[in-house]
Amino acid sequence: MQIETEDVSIKPKSSYGIIDCDVHVSPQNQEEIRKHLDPKWHWRPLVGGRDLFAHPTYVNRTDAVPPSGLPVSSDPDFLRKQLIDEYGITHAILLHRSFSNPLPFVEFATAKASAFNNWLEETWLGAYNADGVFKGSIQISHQDPAASAREIERWAGHPHFVQVLSDSGARAPYGNRMYDPIFEACQKHDLPFATHVGTDGMGINLQASIGYPTHYIEWSTAHCIGYQTHLVSMLIEGVFERFPRLRVVLVEGGISWMPALLWRLDTLYARYRAEVPWLKRKPSEYIRDHVRITSQPLERPDQDKHLLKMLDWMDAEHILMFSSDYPHWDFDSPKHAFPKIPEQLKRRIYFENAKELYKL
Amino acid sequence: MQIETEDVSIKPKSSYGIIDCDVHVSPQNQEEIRKHLDPKWHWRPLVGGRDLFAHPTYVNRTDAVPPSGLPVSSDPDFLRKQLIDEYGITHAILLHRSFSNPLPFVEFATAKASAFNNWLEETWLGAYNADGVFKGSIQISHQDPAASAREIERWAGHPHFVQVLSDSGARAPYGNRMYDPIFEACQKHDLPFATHVGTDGMGINLQASIGYPTHYIEWSTAHCIGYQTHLVSMLIEGVFERFPRLRVVLVEGGISWMPALLWRLDTLYARYRAEVPWLKRKPSEYIRDHVRITSQPLERPDQDKHLLKMLDWMDAEHILMFSSDYPHWDFDSPKHAFPKIPEQLKRRIYFENAKELYKL
Repeated sequence: MQIETEDVSIKPKSSYGIIDCDVHVSPQNQEEIRKHLDPKWHWRPLVGGRDLFAHPTYVNRTDAVPPSGLPVSSDPDFLRKQLIDEYGITHAILLHRSFSNPLPFVEFATAKASAFNNWLEETWLGAYNADGVFKGSIQISHQDPAASAREIERWAGHPHFVQVLSDSGARAPYGNRMYDPIFEACQKHDLPFATHVGTDGMGINLQASIGYPTHYIEWSTAHCIGYQTHLVSMLIEGVFERFPRLRVVLVEGGISWMPALLWRLDTLYARYRAEVPWLKRKPSEYIRDHVRITSQPLERPDQDKHLLKMLDWMDAEHILMFSSDYPHWDFDSPKHAFPKIPEQLKRRIYFENAKELYKL
Repeated sequence: MQIETEDVSIKPKSSYGIIDCDVHVSPQNQEEIRKHLDPKWHWRPLVGGRDLFAHPTYVNRTDAVPPSGLPVSSDPDFLRKQLIDEYGITHAILLHRSFSNPLPFVEFATAKASAFNNWLEETWLGAYNADGVFKGSIQISHQDPAASAREIERWAGHPHFVQVLSDSGARAPYGNRMYDPIFEACQKHDLPFATHVGTDGMGINLQASIGYPTHYIEWSTAHCIGYQTHLVSMLIEGVFERFPRLRVVLVEGGISWMPALLWRLDTLYARYRAEVPWLKRKPSEYIRDHVRITSQPLERPDQDKHLLKMLDWMDAEHILMFSSDYPHWDFDSPKHAFPKIPEQLKRRIYFENAKELYKL
């Protein structure tokens, strides 16, 4: 859907740039991943694990196919031209998806995620990245928290890995104690814990709702429901008291749900706080210090002013970060994603919130 | 929590009254239910099925214990005094909870729900109800949709049964085709389909989120998440196209989540509408014709004006109905539940929306 808005580009002479917090990259072929895998796993197919919907909209922008003939988002030169140069992107936060989280065979899932990390480092974050435009994510398989922590340790200190990446699809919400080794490693190395939608209800992951949806649009809408579950769980279980320097990034699950959820949670907290004595503040008060959220796919109500009000209530100035979801077909252009918003707010959303979070 | 607000009582000389859409009543003893049960089920305990949390806040207002010594909400004279007369309630919509929905043994679950309906009719809706203040709900066990439809048929036409009542706890969201016999019976007899929170994640019901919460406050907050799943499912599956006269009531799951969810759904509908060709309108456009939502426990953000804005966006004037949740401890008093709202809106919320829905 091309939403009609005025061009709200960042001005070329602006004192700030654009940090795109959700850019997907892919290997050129399976061999690029396989060569990083222990041979004992070579018999396993590398693809699969995401089979709930046979829906043609799992597709990329048709113009994202590089002239080189390489797969979409696997040709760094073309991605630079089509995304980085086209929009004046200062940094692209790369989210490579190993789709390890839905897999029941956890040792292979962990090995697969590791191999994707090796590949990312070798192809996008290494010599090719002399100007440091690309920043990467450490993919983990949260089914094995201890192994995830080891994977984080393996990359911590790398100048271009700036966050840990997991899926929103899970068997239990993220406040549960079993995930603590992951958060401990994230906090130790000052790496935000990012979660991305897309494997909810697939493989071993429960669906983020009661049972399974029947249509892609239902599943896709429900991504905002799964994030609500995770966020309530983390707030209630006191994750941010146990890990006071942990930051969390919720990618691609919508944004406007947050104020209503926090109103409800704060209202119930006033009633049930005896149950959660470890909380030192109202649940909502942890958000600014600990949670960031990305913009694409941005909800667009009929009236822009309603969205602006919601941005105000969710403290977008401090927690919202722009994302395009390149190269997917529902890409949000930096020029047209938002209605006209105040310059100061634009600067925070497009640039400063991510700059501060990732220390860019 | 006693929220500080001004007294916003309905004026005694007002041209409208108050319809309370969530009032719980209970039997005085198990024998009142057992006598309506086939003797083949007398060996089964009537209590239980709701054991996820051992939490003392499952309790009633301490002042709701009748001087008669009868259980809370089982003494009609006392309820009349404490609720109906105290606040000038015009009608109380009674929701008796049989807690049948979490039970795996479906024949007994259905029989138990039926026995509760018999009891309600005999005690609250019959001779005692000469002035018609009390209106009842037909409790069903949605695990068996055909049996549910028969139970609806059994009571349809009764002057004081005004809706069908089910739980939000379920094994699959309500858009799924298996529930159609229930909706067909509701539509045929012009009875709204109401769902009430409280058995999510209990017995055979999946939790309304990814896996199970660990604390009562988390579970309770998540009631608003389960309703989002049900509502998206019903809208997407085209329930309101299949049953164009069906009305649905969402009881006790919060209200402020609705605008954000519909913004997201409408945004994605514009992209994925080919998948759901049976939808004739944007998903959000079905709400005013088909969905009503009750107010308690009302979220109270720090600033009242934010809630007023949300009421506007959710079209509260047409879809929101006041509820107190008497006799529970988190009872919302008709006097203090809402901040000061315009008189016309108050009239719709406290009275007219329910009057129109239930044809009172």
